[in-house]
Amino acid sequence: MIAPKVLAFDVFGTVVDWYGTIAREAQALGVDGGEFALAWRAGYQPAMQRVRSGELGWTKIDDLHRMILNEMLPRFGLAHLDEAQRVHLNQVWHRLDAWPDTVAGLTRLKQRFIISTLSNGNLGLLTHMAKQAQLPWDCVLSAEVFRAYKPDPATYLGVAEVFGVQPSEVMLVAAHQDDLAAARACGLQTAYIERLEEYGPKGKDISPDPANTWHAKNLVHLADLLGA
Amino acid sequence: MIAPKVLAFDVFGTVVDWYGTIAREAQALGVDGGEFALAWRAGYQPAMQRVRSGELGWTKIDDLHRMILNEMLPRFGLAHLDEAQRVHLNQVWHRLDAWPDTVAGLTRLKQRFIISTLSNGNLGLLTHMAKQAQLPWDCVLSAEVFRAYKPDPATYLGVAEVFGVQPSEVMLVAAHQDDLAAARACGLQTAYIERLEEYGPKGKDISPDPANTWHAKNLVHLADLLGA
Repeated sequence: MIAPKVLAFDVFGTVVDWYGTIAREAQALGVDGGEFALAWRAGYQPAMQRVRSGELGWTKIDDLHRMILNEMLPRFGLAHLDEAQRVHLNQVWHRLDAWPDTVAGLTRLKQRFIISTLSNGNLGLLTHMAKQAQLPWDCVLSAEVFRAYKPDPATYLGVAEVFGVQPSEVMLVAAHQDDLAAARACGLQTAYIERLEEYGPKGKDISPDPANTWHAKNLVHLADLLGA
Repeated sequence: MIAPKVLAFDVFGTVVDWYGTIAREAQALGVDGGEFALAWRAGYQPAMQRVRSGELGWTKIDDLHRMILNEMLPRFGLAHLDEAQRVHLNQVWHRLDAWPDTVAGLTRLKQRFIISTLSNGNLGLLTHMAKQAQLPWDCVLSAEVFRAYKPDPATYLGVAEVFGVQPSEVMLVAAHQDDLAAARACGLQTAYIERLEEYGPKGKDISPDPANTWHAKNLVHLADLLGA
């Protein structure tokens, strides 16, 4: 196996804890924070699908998040939130907490590899998040750069193209098997990261898939596995 | 005057010393290093113009640099360089030295502002350069993201769009008055950086233009001026 030159990271759930951060902020608004976080995230794939299908033109995640939020606020008894409050709440995605191992893991991995985001989140969102959570990216790449959302092959192959390397020299790091499978189909190496509490205390399936190049508990463990 | 939220930096000449680095590497090949650096850089605007005019489709700077290099090597008696040597030499643009004030100035400015590149250099080039020279960018933006070369308004306005701010909340930082004038025409604030030796010991015109928001000797001086 050739060593990768570039590690491309999924972000929501893999690097940062969207559930915990959103649940905490929503709870402070007097609703069931966990339910609120799950409902918001549940609108994510359907919203992107409207872009993938062409029903919507290119639309940033910030704007998709806002569309989902507007639709769900009445259901949570929060229809009274004014524009400024909605803007602030929508930007919670810019201030998601890193998992406890994230900064230490990325800092080690950066010594040996190019570390980049490869997220459906937009560039502004990812940059604000990195600044707030002190994520030491070498480069911020996004679906926004490729004008295509994962799992479109243009995103995975786009990373190789940007860095002038073969797809097999790029490793996607993600907590989601479907993202990894799509990357593998493009020739990338893959590393699965267990994030048992991504969807809250109910847990999720973190079974290994032997098709992945690596299976790691967290990003510090991945640094151990990769000798970084 | 409103405070900017985002500082977007021109890179070649403003942040890194292309002349000094290329002259040194070319000198080691037995040619007049300064002449070689100037000749290579002189091919840069005409090459981009072939893209702007539509004569060439979208072409990365790495590839434009290589076209210019191939054309000029015989004139410098270096036609014998093989493919691996040409690839290595072409990548000198990935390993340009920062000016002595660059890392200190950027590190201070990063505490107060989002700091991003806005360079015609491609994303891979800028990322490799940042890693090598330890440039602490929050985000790497390039003409490659906007599929347009500066001074196309799509580049300057694209920075504001990416970060969800008004053009007047973005400040272009550059050592070139034409780049700054184009940014100003799009509503950006502008900071001129003196780089007297950008083209080598012969010097260059560093007269202030009162149309700029700021005129700074270097990036540490800019941090002083902006209270960062």
